[in-house]
Amino acid sequence: MNDVAIGLDVGGTKALAVLVTRDGTVLGELKRDTPHDDSVGAGEATAAVLIDEVRELCAANNLDPATVPIGIGLPGLLRNDGHLAYAPNLQSANGADLHELVGDALGNSTVFCENDGNCAALAEHEWGAGRGINDFVMVTLGTGIGGGIISEGQLVKGRNGFAGEIGHMVVVAHGAACGCGGHGCWERYASGGGLQRLTQEAALKGELPTLAQRRGGAEHVRGEDVTSAASEGLEEALVVLREVSWWLALGLANLVAILDAGHFVIGGGLSAVSDLVLPEARRELGALTEGYQWRDEIVITTSTFGPRAGALGAALVGFQRTA
Amino acid sequence: MNDVAIGLDVGGTKALAVLVTRDGTVLGELKRDTPHDDSVGAGEATAAVLIDEVRELCAANNLDPATVPIGIGLPGLLRNDGHLAYAPNLQSANGADLHELVGDALGNSTVFCENDGNCAALAEHEWGAGRGINDFVMVTLGTGIGGGIISEGQLVKGRNGFAGEIGHMVVVAHGAACGCGGHGCWERYASGGGLQRLTQEAALKGELPTLAQRRGGAEHVRGEDVTSAASEGLEEALVVLREVSWWLALGLANLVAILDAGHFVIGGGLSAVSDLVLPEARRELGALTEGYQWRDEIVITTSTFGPRAGALGAALVGFQRTA
Repeated sequence: MNDVAIGLDVGGTKALAVLVTRDGTVLGELKRDTPHDDSVGAGEATAAVLIDEVRELCAANNLDPATVPIGIGLPGLLRNDGHLAYAPNLQSANGADLHELVGDALGNSTVFCENDGNCAALAEHEWGAGRGINDFVMVTLGTGIGGGIISEGQLVKGRNGFAGEIGHMVVVAHGAACGCGGHGCWERYASGGGLQRLTQEAALKGELPTLAQRRGGAEHVRGEDVTSAASEGLEEALVVLREVSWWLALGLANLVAILDAGHFVIGGGLSAVSDLVLPEARRELGALTEGYQWRDEIVITTSTFGPRAGALGAALVGFQRTA
Repeated sequence: MNDVAIGLDVGGTKALAVLVTRDGTVLGELKRDTPHDDSVGAGEATAAVLIDEVRELCAANNLDPATVPIGIGLPGLLRNDGHLAYAPNLQSANGADLHELVGDALGNSTVFCENDGNCAALAEHEWGAGRGINDFVMVTLGTGIGGGIISEGQLVKGRNGFAGEIGHMVVVAHGAACGCGGHGCWERYASGGGLQRLTQEAALKGELPTLAQRRGGAEHVRGEDVTSAASEGLEEALVVLREVSWWLALGLANLVAILDAGHFVIGGGLSAVSDLVLPEARRELGALTEGYQWRDEIVITTSTFGPRAGALGAALVGFQRTA
């Protein structure tokens, strides 16, 4: 039985690597830019960075890169066998089998891939805010919305392994265009990207006069301006965040209807302002959830591991699949 | 081990009872009107009818009503322990424990309740269109939309037991008012009730001139007029059914995103015109599903057991819980 595992979380901009013990303690950590190099084979540029990270973590901790269990969290549609079918934010790795590329280079037969939202859900379930909770949904509010569903203590994988793409649930038929090709996806309203979009709409309608003045024009107002001004209590900014909170609650209510989830763990960049978003989302959830009064209390909480949740979960995948 | 079980399916208008063998063969069947009597205790009027049905089926088949396993399928939010928390179309049974009322009267300790959509999913999974398929969703298109989710071969129950309320997934934020108190629920667009609503809208906009003339006024045109005229090929009616098909596909695409379901079994009254609805829904699904081209083919098929699916599944629950 291994005492430590390495978790790698490949995002659109950064690739985070952590060395983790079985109780979830992080012994080492490093971060590189994610390469987007289409001139080599699918996933090869990504693999090269990950291999470097593993070697560096192993060298610093006196570990053999050929035997340490390794999990790789990847953004996008990941098949059950670890094949990355499609990653809109990591196009150079579309169609890659990164566990093979990394495993072959290191001579390591214990390298495993998993969707990043699923990794985050697993980490929170094992060590964090979802510990001991058998029916919950991990909701990652970044540029888009990622997710991972735990049902009766198990990760829901679905037929291909693609389950948990909750950000692409349509909540506004014929709504705002989404990068996936669809319209009205939840992530166009309730994510960091949704905040950005709603901010621009509000600014151009003249509803953010103070921020427009500060920025020297409505067209320059950004989502970050709204969150920092809302933290200071600026009412016009709070209005936009309340709208984001309402959209967040709407999607959560849908997940309650479908899954009877009783618990949501909110992660991702937008969760940094969870104090401004979650109280309002909790209030709205009552009105938006079918049969709310007959359900046990629905808990919405913040991720324990924040931006590290995916990497920690990837390490957990390494432990679980070598158990 | 019991050779037969009784399944009871309590709908808003009828209570169907079937006597079923372990291979799903129906040996006997009867139907009564569902009572809506608030003057007695919660669920007592319903229980009286169900008890009568069990006794009659047992008498006709030489069975002991005290020992035959009995499953009861109920519409609404049913807790894991069989308690009916809330049933909008069976208000007189709100808060009832029908398995206890029926079991006590018959001296039968093998009476079990389950949500009707879940019952239908179980029946189709065991004996019908979902046989051998480990990730599918049962979608019941009646006045509303009911459902049951099978994930990795198991019924998804959720925290309270309420999972599968797919009809109350919001697909149009701030959309059409729904009986649940919400707005824009899927069942206001893609069910028999949705057809009725879309028909009325189309008729009042003058888009169903032939049907309005046949009925003596746009306000008299009903969903049934559209389905029968569409069967005859009337284009104005086909337009309305295509709209219903699009909405059906939209909700199915959401379930694919969330659950990575690969298979849908469509039941309920509207499935009687599945030849007119499902081909179009299949066509639309490709454009509405995130990452459609990377998924294995998504199958949309019609329920094997139609209006009997719930009762058959209830009998199956009787078998399973006495196994």
